[in-house]
Amino acid sequence: MKIILVGASGTIGQHLFTELAPRHEVIRASRNGDVTVDITSRASIEAMFTQVGPFDALVSATGGGHFGPLDTMTEEDFYKGIRSKLMGQVNLVMVGKDYINDNGSFTLVSGILADDPIRNGVNLSVVNGALNAFAVSAAVELKRGLRLNVVCPGLVEDSEEELGSAFPGHIPVSMKRVVYGYLKSVEGVLTGEVIRIY
Amino acid sequence: MKIILVGASGTIGQHLFTELAPRHEVIRASRNGDVTVDITSRASIEAMFTQVGPFDALVSATGGGHFGPLDTMTEEDFYKGIRSKLMGQVNLVMVGKDYINDNGSFTLVSGILADDPIRNGVNLSVVNGALNAFAVSAAVELKRGLRLNVVCPGLVEDSEEELGSAFPGHIPVSMKRVVYGYLKSVEGVLTGEVIRIY
Ligand SMILES: NC(=O)c1ccc[n+]([C@@H]2O[C@H](COP(=O)([O-])OP(=O)(O)OC[C@H]3O[C@@H](n4cnc5c(N)ncnc54)[C@H](OP(=O)(O)O)[C@@H]3O)[C@@H](O)[C@H]2O)c1
Ligand SMILES: NC(=O)c1ccc[n+]([C@@H]2O[C@H](COP(=O)([O-])OP(=O)(O)OC[C@H]3O[C@@H](n4cnc5c(N)ncnc54)[C@H](OP(=O)(O)O)[C@@H]3O)[C@@H](O)[C@H]2O)c1
Repeated sequence: MKIILVGASGTIGQHLFTELAPRHEVIRASRNGDVTVDITSRASIEAMFTQVGPFDALVSATGGGHFGPLDTMTEEDFYKGIRSKLMGQVNLVMVGKDYINDNGSFTLVSGILADDPIRNGVNLSVVNGALNAFAVSAAVELKRGLRLNVVCPGLVEDSEEELGSAFPGHIPVSMKRVVYGYLKSVEGVLTGEVIRIY
Repeated sequence: MKIILVGASGTIGQHLFTELAPRHEVIRASRNGDVTVDITSRASIEAMFTQVGPFDALVSATGGGHFGPLDTMTEEDFYKGIRSKLMGQVNLVMVGKDYINDNGSFTLVSGILADDPIRNGVNLSVVNGALNAFAVSAAVELKRGLRLNVVCPGLVEDSEEELGSAFPGHIPVSMKRVVYGYLKSVEGVLTGEVIRIY
């Protein structure tokens, strides 16, 4: 398969590349990737798909949001996650569905904060909840055998040192489980699923 | 209690007023209400709270989004629900928390499409999923004993004639169950709950 991996240089993306590259043609995309894309700009997403041409799978391991106390959050803070992690990934699907081959798949990423909150995590909770619902609802309207799922990981072991103190009591999940969650979507048959890794 | 009911003139809001008015001081707010507010404008929300003064509960039965096929949805269509039903209600809490009395409560509304999709419903699914996650995550950071819940109704029987054909196989829920879901939040003790009525 020809696979576009957005966020290929990240903590999760690097492992996805290592897993997928032996079996597939994997194109590494991000702001500083082999193919450059900024998911916060729909025009940039359009340009990426035009450059890459027809493909079989879009895999996303990217998207940010605001992290900070509810008390001091501004409306703009909410829109940080909405424009990046939420609408960035929504637009990867909305634009990409006109470029992807028949029976292709989209795999997005959300996260445990949709269900299981932490202090300072409201923006990411909101965005993850929205992404889970997007996968479930948009999948049913895709045509030409296209599939769409979202991987919803817990805190990954590789991020425990950096992020663990913000996630008290969260038992980190193995990177292997996260990568295998993506494989279920990319190489498997599921569609419209929230693939929870926790 | 002094209760601000946003969307008091709507299908659900009218029944909430009937239930709450005998026991509480209920202020009917909406674009054309006794107190006027447009939830898509943060300035309008600020003005409402300044006008009404201290209160004990904010109850929301309002907020719209885009309804239509995925294939023809634009980015702006996604933002219709984001600006109205999602950020409108988020802002009722974010602004309202500085005006509400100690131990007060916020009760928002989402809907079954967060979990159980229908054709043409992607924007509302996304927004409802985001609102459910907002209630769960923002509740844990509220101070002064403040509570926050979201009522997540199925298609309500009163809307079956107008909307039923868009919800094949959805068994409408009684308005009484929806109103009682709100009561659990407003007069009860819950916080951080998605009160599913289906
Ligand atoms: N790590 C965890 O424990 C964990 C757990 C649950 C969910 N998640 C979610 O998984 C996703 C990836 O997490 P991660 O920890 O792997 O992130 P990361 O290490 O920060 O990597 C982010 C990747 O995305 C790219 N990127 C950042 N902004 C971009 C933009 N605007 N447009 C295009 N590419 C962009 C980065 O490359 P460039 O700088 O070149 O753009 C990089 O490749 C995030 O959505 C995160 O919330 C992570
Ligand atoms: N009805 C159902 O079966 C059902 C099921 C699940 C979820 N829900 C959700 O429940 C909520 C209410 O539904 P409903 O059927 O009762 O709606 P509705 O009958 O259309 O009533 C909407 C109410 O909100 C007010 N409103 C509309 N836009 C507003 C704005 N920008 N700012 C402030 N007020 C505004 C309206 O009054 P003005 O025109 O005066 O502003 C009216 O009072 C919606 O979020 C809906 O998605 C409904």
